Amino acid sequence: MQRRIVECVPNFSEGRRQEVIDAIVESIRDVGGVLLLDVSSDADHNRSVVTFAGEPEAVLEGAFAAIRTAAEKINLDEHQGQHPRIGAADVVPFVPLQGMTLDDCAVMARRLGQRVGDELGIPVYLYAHTATRPDRQDLQAIRRGGYETLKEAVLTDPNKQPDFGPARLGTAGATVIGARVPLVAFNVFLTTDDVQIARRIAAAVRHSSGGYHYLKSLGFLVKGRAQVSMNFTDPTRTPIARVVETIRREAARYGVSIHHTELVGLIPQGAVLDAAGWYLQLDALRPGQVLETALRSALDAHPEWE
Amino acid sequence: MQRRIVECVPNFSEGRRQEVIDAIVESIRDVGGVLLLDVSSDADHNRSVVTFAGEPEAVLEGAFAAIRTAAEKINLDEHQGQHPRIGAADVVPFVPLQGMTLDDCAVMARRLGQRVGDELGIPVYLYAHTATRPDRQDLQAIRRGGYETLKEAVLTDPNKQPDFGPARLGTAGATVIGARVPLVAFNVFLTTDDVQIARRIAAAVRHSSGGYHYLKSLGFLVKGRAQVSMNFTDPTRTPIARVVETIRREAARYGVSIHHTELVGLIPQGAVLDAAGWYLQLDALRPGQVLETALRSALDAHPEWE
Repeated sequence: MQRRIVECVPNFSEGRRQEVIDAIVESIRDVGGVLLLDVSSDADHNRSVVTFAGEPEAVLEGAFAAIRTAAEKINLDEHQGQHPRIGAADVVPFVPLQGMTLDDCAVMARRLGQRVGDELGIPVYLYAHTATRPDRQDLQAIRRGGYETLKEAVLTDPNKQPDFGPARLGTAGATVIGARVPLVAFNVFLTTDDVQIARRIAAAVRHSSGGYHYLKSLGFLVKGRAQVSMNFTDPTRTPIARVVETIRREAARYGVSIHHTELVGLIPQGAVLDAAGWYLQLDALRPGQVLETALRSALDAHPEWE
Repeated sequence: MQRRIVECVPNFSEGRRQEVIDAIVESIRDVGGVLLLDVSSDADHNRSVVTFAGEPEAVLEGAFAAIRTAAEKINLDEHQGQHPRIGAADVVPFVPLQGMTLDDCAVMARRLGQRVGDELGIPVYLYAHTATRPDRQDLQAIRRGGYETLKEAVLTDPNKQPDFGPARLGTAGATVIGARVPLVAFNVFLTTDDVQIARRIAAAVRHSSGGYHYLKSLGFLVKGRAQVSMNFTDPTRTPIARVVETIRREAARYGVSIHHTELVGLIPQGAVLDAAGWYLQLDALRPGQVLETALRSALDAHPEWE
């Protein structure tokens, strides 16, 4: 029988102090049975994204341990960074990888939320597929104004009551937890330090202001360059290549161009094939034409081989 | 211990009669312990490329069986097609995939060549890493003029004596056998039926006439379109994206453009990542950032998991 595998991609509000990032990663590793897949840290955003996977129980324990460590080591009152955030462990999504559904992940998210609220005393907001109200489906709506705004609002605004935990923020802030499909976090750096250009381009391409359906985007100044920072929430429908070429055209309209791009965390192989196929005009590229994938499939179909 | 896996990518001079292609594939399948990875057939080239893999002994048996079936079913005196060819089983390369070296594959190529010559009475030319003389390293040099020319030359020209088998061609022609690194077979279709444009572009990009180092190319008319047909013999050094963009520029010089492209057989994942990264300007894309690859590596590092 195929093993059930869930992915967890927590984002932490620390991208500078390596010892804190290491401590968070170690607390995940210390839980047996989890596979650490990637750690991406960014000093300008002062933020790290950890990707790990495994069976549901182990992954839930890993997520809880990481949130506890982040709460101990990160003080939001002292945190500065480009990226919007409300918590030390800012957002903790569960993603179905193998033998799991989105609903299975939603059950995990609610269990984790309950424990984080009860045992760590951290307010938890459920989002995405796990949201308890329509205005919490969207992560950016929950996070708008950041830690500083929520700290006041949670005390007075009935719309800001958390799903679990107390209605007050400590130095660990609040944590957003939920179930979602895989996304791709992708940043485009421009040949300018004018952050307004990045903000205008972000507004042009993102869904909320008239752009592509499955795209979220913000403009930042990172490492001295204007950066269009994006989340592709369904890269099978809003493909990376099309958006990058739209950004290239928009940038030209401001007299600048794309300097380079970066991927934060992991990307499904399908999204890479799709980008290569789009540019190369390779109409009929199938995952089964990738040598490693074809060999893997053939080996999986012949278990006597391994 | 890691299992030894060799890939074999034989090319057969039949791309139209499905029952013949099926018979060849069946004769490979009938050998136990081989993994069939891909079959790509082209009616215009009247040619099929089969990709299979496995342990050396099984793959050698599969290759021998396929050559025997092709020799029984294909008559080169009746064969017509765009692509240069000298045999029913035209070229049979062994490629090291896992736990194998190019020298290991060369040993296999010589063993297969001996058997094909002795048992099937088919002349065999060793090529690439297995060549016995410098003018046989290059496949196109061995194949120049095709079956019709070689049929006469093998009788009289001392330079055309085969490495194994008789110095005369039956209806199965001759077979080229050898060991080589993985290559990518990639075709670009133009928005014209003028084959001369494809031939000029092929001459511009290929190594032999001044183009890219690790590239072979010919121009054909396929499905009513001019086609630049290529073999990337080392896509890590001569990357697909750069060549496609060079072809795009050359095509524009003739007032035409790229209609679409196609991949024949399989492609290493690295070449796909490389193309996506080049176009997207994704400077730091690592194979470990592909979700499926990261998960696979993590699982391989934890054998207790499976």
